[in-house]
Amino acid sequence: MEWEAIQNRLNTLLENGRHGELRGAMMMLNEVDIAQYMETLDKDKLLLMFRILPKDISADVFSYMSAEQKQTLIESIGDNEIRALIDDMFLDDAVDFLEELPASVVKRVLQTADPEKRNLINQFLRYPENSAGSLMTIEYLEFHGEDTVRQAMELIRKEGLDKETIYTLYIIDSTHHLIGTLPLRKMILASEDTVLSSIMERNPVSVCTTDDQEKVAELVRRYDLYAIPVVDKEDRLVGIITADDVMDVIEEETTEDFEKMAALTPSDDEYLKTSPFKLALNRIPWLLVMAIIAIFTGLIITKYEDVLQATGSVGIILTSCIPMLMDTGGNCGAQSSTLIIRGLSLGQITLKDFFKALWKEFRVAIIVGAVLFIFTFLRVMYVNPLFMENGTGITWQVALVVSAALFCTIMLAKALGCAMPMLAKRLGLDPALMASPMITTVVDMSSLFIYFNIAKMVLHL
Amino acid sequence: MEWEAIQNRLNTLLENGRHGELRGAMMMLNEVDIAQYMETLDKDKLLLMFRILPKDISADVFSYMSAEQKQTLIESIGDNEIRALIDDMFLDDAVDFLEELPASVVKRVLQTADPEKRNLINQFLRYPENSAGSLMTIEYLEFHGEDTVRQAMELIRKEGLDKETIYTLYIIDSTHHLIGTLPLRKMILASEDTVLSSIMERNPVSVCTTDDQEKVAELVRRYDLYAIPVVDKEDRLVGIITADDVMDVIEEETTEDFEKMAALTPSDDEYLKTSPFKLALNRIPWLLVMAIIAIFTGLIITKYEDVLQATGSVGIILTSCIPMLMDTGGNCGAQSSTLIIRGLSLGQITLKDFFKALWKEFRVAIIVGAVLFIFTFLRVMYVNPLFMENGTGITWQVALVVSAALFCTIMLAKALGCAMPMLAKRLGLDPALMASPMITTVVDMSSLFIYFNIAKMVLHL
Repeated sequence: MEWEAIQNRLNTLLENGRHGELRGAMMMLNEVDIAQYMETLDKDKLLLMFRILPKDISADVFSYMSAEQKQTLIESIGDNEIRALIDDMFLDDAVDFLEELPASVVKRVLQTADPEKRNLINQFLRYPENSAGSLMTIEYLEFHGEDTVRQAMELIRKEGLDKETIYTLYIIDSTHHLIGTLPLRKMILASEDTVLSSIMERNPVSVCTTDDQEKVAELVRRYDLYAIPVVDKEDRLVGIITADDVMDVIEEETTEDFEKMAALTPSDDEYLKTSPFKLALNRIPWLLVMAIIAIFTGLIITKYEDVLQATGSVGIILTSCIPMLMDTGGNCGAQSSTLIIRGLSLGQITLKDFFKALWKEFRVAIIVGAVLFIFTFLRVMYVNPLFMENGTGITWQVALVVSAALFCTIMLAKALGCAMPMLAKRLGLDPALMASPMITTVVDMSSLFIYFNIAKMVLHL
Repeated sequence: MEWEAIQNRLNTLLENGRHGELRGAMMMLNEVDIAQYMETLDKDKLLLMFRILPKDISADVFSYMSAEQKQTLIESIGDNEIRALIDDMFLDDAVDFLEELPASVVKRVLQTADPEKRNLINQFLRYPENSAGSLMTIEYLEFHGEDTVRQAMELIRKEGLDKETIYTLYIIDSTHHLIGTLPLRKMILASEDTVLSSIMERNPVSVCTTDDQEKVAELVRRYDLYAIPVVDKEDRLVGIITADDVMDVIEEETTEDFEKMAALTPSDDEYLKTSPFKLALNRIPWLLVMAIIAIFTGLIITKYEDVLQATGSVGIILTSCIPMLMDTGGNCGAQSSTLIIRGLSLGQITLKDFFKALWKEFRVAIIVGAVLFIFTFLRVMYVNPLFMENGTGITWQVALVVSAALFCTIMLAKALGCAMPMLAKRLGLDPALMASPMITTVVDMSSLFIYFNIAKMVLHL
């Protein structure tokens, strides 16, 4: 059935107060879809719907709801309901949810949780945001090297239900250090009396609680893991991070890169749910910074006004080529910086490759520059005169000035587009900040400077 | 141990011909790392190393090698070795690998494979590139609804070793239609005599062989799946796609978006491994397209030359503000288009939201425009004169012209930045094509047109 048809039926049931049928319908749907449906409801209906939900899936549905709807709901339900909800949620989902709430609501929620859970949540809330510690869950199973396959299966049958994954077994020694992992599939294929230490994989890939989520994502992607173990500073196993949470991290980090590359202050909010005021606030600072830099670009023009006011049509031709020069420079810089930024973030390029990348960009710039040099020379010589009342001023020297300046601009734009993101990374900044808008602004200034000086030299202005 | 230290030791062992120790060292390493190490070797050493590799991991290591190294290797080894390699690889990895090779090599590889495998590979090679069919693997286990847990466990023990995942059981009816899925964890917790149909999840999420990989990625991300079943047009189960392959797809699609947004022809090659000529070829077409559009921007300037040559310092002030106007317009457009493109690709914005998004951008543009209007007005009035020898021409009317044109440009840039990606999507094009470079070029032209007309009106030129 189409999603719209499903929505319509649910709406009808809800409006006619047919709660039994509604609950039955819910049982047939996926938690993600129910959460999406609940996004469309107003406060009263949301609350009603939440109470109709089969109890065993309400915590799951809740985890998939948006931060706004979660908060609306929390503010409407009683302490007992909150407590039940928090107790049913996986710890990492509960922590994520609390991190999104205002402090006052967090306080209320924590007061209602049972003391043990509260302690755990508090501990998790202390991990730095975006660290492996804040992402991990403690719902995993621990085993010892001397356990047999039979014992391990018993433990899984007994306690596996509440764990986020049972597909990797984490094996620790008596001091709680992680000594190996064992994929469940490998264990199932082994005989019942095998001890785990004889079939486990030693030296498992792991991360530390304080590692950044970017590192977590890189390792999971690199080693195709379903889950990665998290250890503390003393190398003791304290949690795991599952692949589905890592996918969300990758998505978030990528969106941040896109935003920084477009001169936006990164934000976790969904576009359609963010107020115009907040959106404007994310955009204005960078626009102002770049408008300030553009003042200097303008000053260069004022400084060389004699060039632009050259006699005949030369001045106007030179002026009319400014947009082309600026745009091409900006676009060339953006092409290089995007490839470098993406390469850095996927780990395909490292800082050690600085000169290798620069040398590559240098060669690319020569090819691209040559093609555009020829195009522009011909264009100024033969196309521009067609559109001018008085095209007599256009000599091959003028065409040479424009195309030579363009060539230099391309060389410079490619070099800066390659070097600036890498220098940013070297300085501990995010390379994505050195993307198109920043490069464009810097290239503009330099290219006009080059342009006017070439004009002065060649045309003796 | 640090990666560099590991590499050095392996190099020493390799150079001294200590093959036994080298093989032992390999056994301690992860396949991904071994493949990475092999990237650094020349042809002879690569071949030597490959033959030293423990046989049971050589196919895995091979899957993780780069296309270039794979081809080098294939061209050096004998038919029997190729055959053993292909037979040991998972089918989807083998198909991926063959898709990267030149036709002549593919022919040789297929001739050596056993007939059954060859048929399967041929069938897979016929699925359109980037379709679910070309991504899927057939190494999964099928069960019937009337099977008991005991029977299912037996089948898993017997055949699970060669399957890509055994963590989800796919349950079919007598006509091979997919009727349900069952997470292994749920089955392990059930008693041995339970029949699968009583505990399976009905209406499983699935994709069709012809569905695009973007849809696959969206569903896996949305429903947090470890693997998604693939059905043919008659709804019969034909394969599965695992989450690790989906992560690669997401990474690839995102990189494509980045590339298109920077006016690059998307390419699957790693930056450092691509020749300067190929890189230049990916960049030149769009640069030329935009250079051609910029001709018209230049023509607008020629058309209004009287405005820029206005008496006193008015003409030069107006000229000097062109870069600021163009840059701010481009940046504003890029901000909007990036948010819209990203929102569209994450499914947070749909075409139905067109007017909602436009109305939001309209309000954002008014706020951003107002702030930059004030900034620019003050700047032209009070900052510019400081840097000019003859600043007498700067009246409040000139400042008004510049800031009013900027305000209009921002309104236009935001509207186009929002509308163009959505229109592209409506027309079946990729929204990412309508990113910063394209928007900048279009906004430039319109903003200069607005600028000169406001100047003519207000300053009576």
